[in-house]
Amino acid sequence: MSPLFWSAPVSAVLALGFALYLALNNLRKEEGTEPMKQVAQAVKEGATAYLKQQYKGVSIFFAIVFVLLLILALLKLQSPFVPFAFLTGGFFSGLSGFIGMSIGVRCSARTTWASKQSLNSGLRVAFSSGMVMGLVVVGLGLIDISIWYIILNAVYASEPLIHKLELITSTMLAFGIGASSQALFARVGGGIFTKAADVGADLVGKIEAGIPEDDPRNPAVIADNVGDNVGDIAGMGADLYESYVDSIIASMALSVVAFKGTGWEINGILLPMVLAGVGIISSIIGSFFVRAGEKAEQAVLLSALRRGIYGAAVLSAILAFIVTRWLLPENWSVYWAILSGLLAGVLIGYFTEMFTSDSYSPTRAISAEARTSPATVILEGLSVGMRSAFPIVIVVVVAIITSFFLSGFGSPEIGLYGIGIAAVGMLSTLGITLATDAYGPVADNAGGNAQMTGQEPIVRERTDALDALGNTTAATGKGFAIGSAALTALALIAAYRDEVRVVSQRFLGEVRTLQLSLLNPYLIAGIFAGAVIPMVVSSSILKAVARTASKIADEVRRQFREIAGLMEGKTKPDYARAVTICTKAAQKEMLSPALTAIIAPVIVGLLLGPEGVAGFLIGGLATGFCLAIFMANAGGAWDNAKKFIEKGNYGGKGSEAHKASVVGDTVGDPLKDAAGPSLNILLKLQSMVSIVVLGLVLKISSYMPWLK
Amino acid sequence: MSPLFWSAPVSAVLALGFALYLALNNLRKEEGTEPMKQVAQAVKEGATAYLKQQYKGVSIFFAIVFVLLLILALLKLQSPFVPFAFLTGGFFSGLSGFIGMSIGVRCSARTTWASKQSLNSGLRVAFSSGMVMGLVVVGLGLIDISIWYIILNAVYASEPLIHKLELITSTMLAFGIGASSQALFARVGGGIFTKAADVGADLVGKIEAGIPEDDPRNPAVIADNVGDNVGDIAGMGADLYESYVDSIIASMALSVVAFKGTGWEINGILLPMVLAGVGIISSIIGSFFVRAGEKAEQAVLLSALRRGIYGAAVLSAILAFIVTRWLLPENWSVYWAILSGLLAGVLIGYFTEMFTSDSYSPTRAISAEARTSPATVILEGLSVGMRSAFPIVIVVVVAIITSFFLSGFGSPEIGLYGIGIAAVGMLSTLGITLATDAYGPVADNAGGNAQMTGQEPIVRERTDALDALGNTTAATGKGFAIGSAALTALALIAAYRDEVRVVSQRFLGEVRTLQLSLLNPYLIAGIFAGAVIPMVVSSSILKAVARTASKIADEVRRQFREIAGLMEGKTKPDYARAVTICTKAAQKEMLSPALTAIIAPVIVGLLLGPEGVAGFLIGGLATGFCLAIFMANAGGAWDNAKKFIEKGNYGGKGSEAHKASVVGDTVGDPLKDAAGPSLNILLKLQSMVSIVVLGLVLKISSYMPWLK
Repeated sequence: MSPLFWSAPVSAVLALGFALYLALNNLRKEEGTEPMKQVAQAVKEGATAYLKQQYKGVSIFFAIVFVLLLILALLKLQSPFVPFAFLTGGFFSGLSGFIGMSIGVRCSARTTWASKQSLNSGLRVAFSSGMVMGLVVVGLGLIDISIWYIILNAVYASEPLIHKLELITSTMLAFGIGASSQALFARVGGGIFTKAADVGADLVGKIEAGIPEDDPRNPAVIADNVGDNVGDIAGMGADLYESYVDSIIASMALSVVAFKGTGWEINGILLPMVLAGVGIISSIIGSFFVRAGEKAEQAVLLSALRRGIYGAAVLSAILAFIVTRWLLPENWSVYWAILSGLLAGVLIGYFTEMFTSDSYSPTRAISAEARTSPATVILEGLSVGMRSAFPIVIVVVVAIITSFFLSGFGSPEIGLYGIGIAAVGMLSTLGITLATDAYGPVADNAGGNAQMTGQEPIVRERTDALDALGNTTAATGKGFAIGSAALTALALIAAYRDEVRVVSQRFLGEVRTLQLSLLNPYLIAGIFAGAVIPMVVSSSILKAVARTASKIADEVRRQFREIAGLMEGKTKPDYARAVTICTKAAQKEMLSPALTAIIAPVIVGLLLGPEGVAGFLIGGLATGFCLAIFMANAGGAWDNAKKFIEKGNYGGKGSEAHKASVVGDTVGDPLKDAAGPSLNILLKLQSMVSIVVLGLVLKISSYMPWLK
Repeated sequence: MSPLFWSAPVSAVLALGFALYLALNNLRKEEGTEPMKQVAQAVKEGATAYLKQQYKGVSIFFAIVFVLLLILALLKLQSPFVPFAFLTGGFFSGLSGFIGMSIGVRCSARTTWASKQSLNSGLRVAFSSGMVMGLVVVGLGLIDISIWYIILNAVYASEPLIHKLELITSTMLAFGIGASSQALFARVGGGIFTKAADVGADLVGKIEAGIPEDDPRNPAVIADNVGDNVGDIAGMGADLYESYVDSIIASMALSVVAFKGTGWEINGILLPMVLAGVGIISSIIGSFFVRAGEKAEQAVLLSALRRGIYGAAVLSAILAFIVTRWLLPENWSVYWAILSGLLAGVLIGYFTEMFTSDSYSPTRAISAEARTSPATVILEGLSVGMRSAFPIVIVVVVAIITSFFLSGFGSPEIGLYGIGIAAVGMLSTLGITLATDAYGPVADNAGGNAQMTGQEPIVRERTDALDALGNTTAATGKGFAIGSAALTALALIAAYRDEVRVVSQRFLGEVRTLQLSLLNPYLIAGIFAGAVIPMVVSSSILKAVARTASKIADEVRRQFREIAGLMEGKTKPDYARAVTICTKAAQKEMLSPALTAIIAPVIVGLLLGPEGVAGFLIGGLATGFCLAIFMANAGGAWDNAKKFIEKGNYGGKGSEAHKASVVGDTVGDPLKDAAGPSLNILLKLQSMVSIVVLGLVLKISSYMPWLK
């Protein structure tokens, strides 16, 4: 094994150590006044209670799938390590979210307190808690992959090289399934919770009763703040853990075929891990660039954040060149894939910002429509979201073509490996880009705390400024997440084809080559079936949010009506009821999307055979990718269109235009924070499930008369 | 040529003759009082003026494309008949819409007048005007195809058989492009006009000023009624003309390869035309089943309509069996494809109704959400629309698989032909199914007339009942349109592959076989690029509607404010201004979707080569089909959810819930009547353009260094 391999686990440990240092540093800071602590405590308790409940539900799911995988393993349709890899993937994905949230809930009041001093102090606390999350995600991700690699490498040491690598990579895919399942639960459950609470609280509080956001008289206000933590922080942590490890695992799987017989098999597998390692180092160094004078204005802070992100990206690009030349001296052209991945990520971030920031015309056009009615706000927002998919899809198309050709140079197998590596390149600096995404909800909660504890207006203004700043830089983070999802899913589809060859030989005794012609009727049928799945999953998430939000709205109205003295601020509302309603609904509804993702590929495999599955995966990718961008950007644009009006345009807060824009924001919230991100996970999860159940599908489908 | 061929032109003439008889019969009926005539006259003038304007704009487009095609023909990259086929397709598609609308505007007041007598009398007038439209569409469609076939058959009589058939079918595809382009303009232009007027009128009239729909004091009321005619009638006519002829042409194109060398080449080409012919006969006979007693209730009328549709379908199935056995005695298993097509159409109609009728839970759930807020109405509706795509896609998948295997029995070429034939089977009874769809807008206009001329409430109730009845049966019609679009588009993609072989041999001197592997990077890039196009087109349509609606709303507000005595009914509003605003906007905005559909496949061909185009078409089909169903059904469900509340549920008309449901309806209108149907056309247009410009694309792309 190349000594360079060790750079991966070492960087991972470094990331975790630096995260611990940052966390302890933050926790030593003042948490503020007693009321501030109390609010933070209430949110923390609610969030922890919810997560406990969620992990309980998820454990049952994991236990069942574990047993099923164990049976498959006992039937010798799978490696015996698969069930355990699955469990650890789920565990660590959940842990990433949990740790991120734990630091988040502890830093919100501290951010409020720091914001009393200055904007920059607030940013430091919030950003470093985001940085903890970023480093935990990449650190845990890379250390887990490294450990599994070391274990499997030792266990299968006596196998012939290619067979050994096949066993290692296919087992690691089960690890990915665990991570993705956990992430899907976290995104869907957390997303339903947070958006239902948010929508329900806003509908009655802001629109009907006319009290401000986060007003302590609103019975759903604690649920709303709990939701930010379990959805936007814990959910996002699990989500990006999944993106990160999946991109690495997918490239490792493709490298076996890409370098077969060239003598570079092992180095090809090591490259994604080592790239991740140098990305971590770059992220840590980049974080030191995020500095500004104590009295810095918003624009200065923004450029400080950008300096951090771009600094890390440039550094990572340089280090990646060195390690690629070292590990793959004969095929270092793979480096161009890394570079196209990085560049595509930046470009997607740019276009995301163009369509969702109120500095540009698309979002402003939505604000302008608010003068007419909520309906035109919705129509214009749908239009902006759909339009935004175009440049982003084109960027990804160009990235695919350039990665394929520049890294492959005639070898289509290395070309496909290049597509996977492009995703790794895109996500290599996740440590810092995630920080810019994750500190937003902390700032959001800090604002809630300021409002509920009645701080002077300047504090809320500063936390709002931090939140807005976060929205802008988050565009970059989201660009990386969406783009990498498309590339990784594509790489996994390629891996699926390779696995069909390997698995059919191993379990059926003969090599089954896929007939991937576009006019194969099974494949066409699969494409149609796959294309509709993202719609089905989005549908059930949106329905759950709408219905739970209505329940919350009813509950808030009931409390306003029945609890005497509530509106006058004399009595406290019953916060716990709203939390319970959200918890129950989220728990009930999170199951079906995850089950769809896991069961659909199996059913398609049994009915339409492996060609049908290939079509299914590509159909899902085509629709899912476009829908995910549409939902993310429509939601973002509606959100900022509302904020643009709140800045005083078109009548400002309280005007009819503002009310219309709130409808847009309310519709957009579950699109951008629940349904949209779930699709990114879904696409990869479906591909990995298809690969892991291949043995079973090939075995059973060989008995299906119409598949002969 | 089989004598059976002549059944096609003869049935077509029969259809046109019967349509003339029905039209004259209707026109002899009483048009009502003087004010009723005046309103009808105003709407007629507005609609005719708009269509004139639209045809002017469209002619410029047609002239330019005609010249381009002529140049290609002079460069010998195309048959010299192509430009002329293109022109006639456009002309007759437009004519179908125009005739349908001419009869529609003349029958609305007559429907109002007949509704004073009884519900059944109203139905008779409205339904027979819808029947005129249905028969004109199928009659013109089939006669045009027959004439072109006779001409080309004579011109190319001396060519070798297969070459002759290739020349005939590829020229007929240009006819399809003309029809589809015209249809796209009609749908987009008409759709923007009608929905902008509708939304603008409702927003200010119903919601802000609190006056009823179609109130004569509303300055946009004439524009709204004009819109119904130019969008929902003329647009729908052109649209279904296109669906009808495209399905026939696509099957004819596939038959050349399917029966090559079997001796059944000609009969294979004749079958789609003959099937259309027997479908016309069945539709005419079916229309006689639509009878009910003078005092019949709504439920009785519904079953009378259904008797007509299903009677025609059963008859058509029987006749189709006979002609299939006659024309293709060795391959009469193609009949199963016809049957699966018919059955799939019925099933899609069933599911459409289940998701959009207020008798079922999905639509009622939207109504229930209206108690909470407009935002939850939107979310629930988005969810219903997305969910509804699932069963419909599955029905189409099953239809594809059964058509392919049952008609092919081992021959994949005949299997693909079977998919095309399934679409012909589905649309064979269009004469009558379109009638049930087309009479809705006539009834809608009749209601408007009743309102504007102050008829007693029972009249409006009856026209509303007719409209509601139409909504229910229209579900069946829409099912056929959507399902056939998917099957036809798929057939056209198969035809594209065949054409690449033919065209490359003819123009490059060597046979170019497509490398359609799913992992071909050009194909993947094409899939992504294709998937995003339906979003781009929908986006520009929705944007145009939102912005024009805002302009209309501003204009209505201005007139309410500035015209003294308007609200008291003492002065008349300036109706013409709203019509002008809509006309200008529709003309300006209808261009870009049509240009996208025509230019995108050319650009993709030049950059990614023919494999990229194949991916592009299938990617567009995957996303476009799902989006089209989603938009159609979300819109339908929102519409009926509003009507359910208007029936007195959740507070009835004027309640907060009603206002929230109006927002849903307003958002849904452009989705279901402008963007959604445009996608059905887009998918086929893109495929046909790809085929017709193949000579050019192959020639130029052979110089592109990266495509070597």
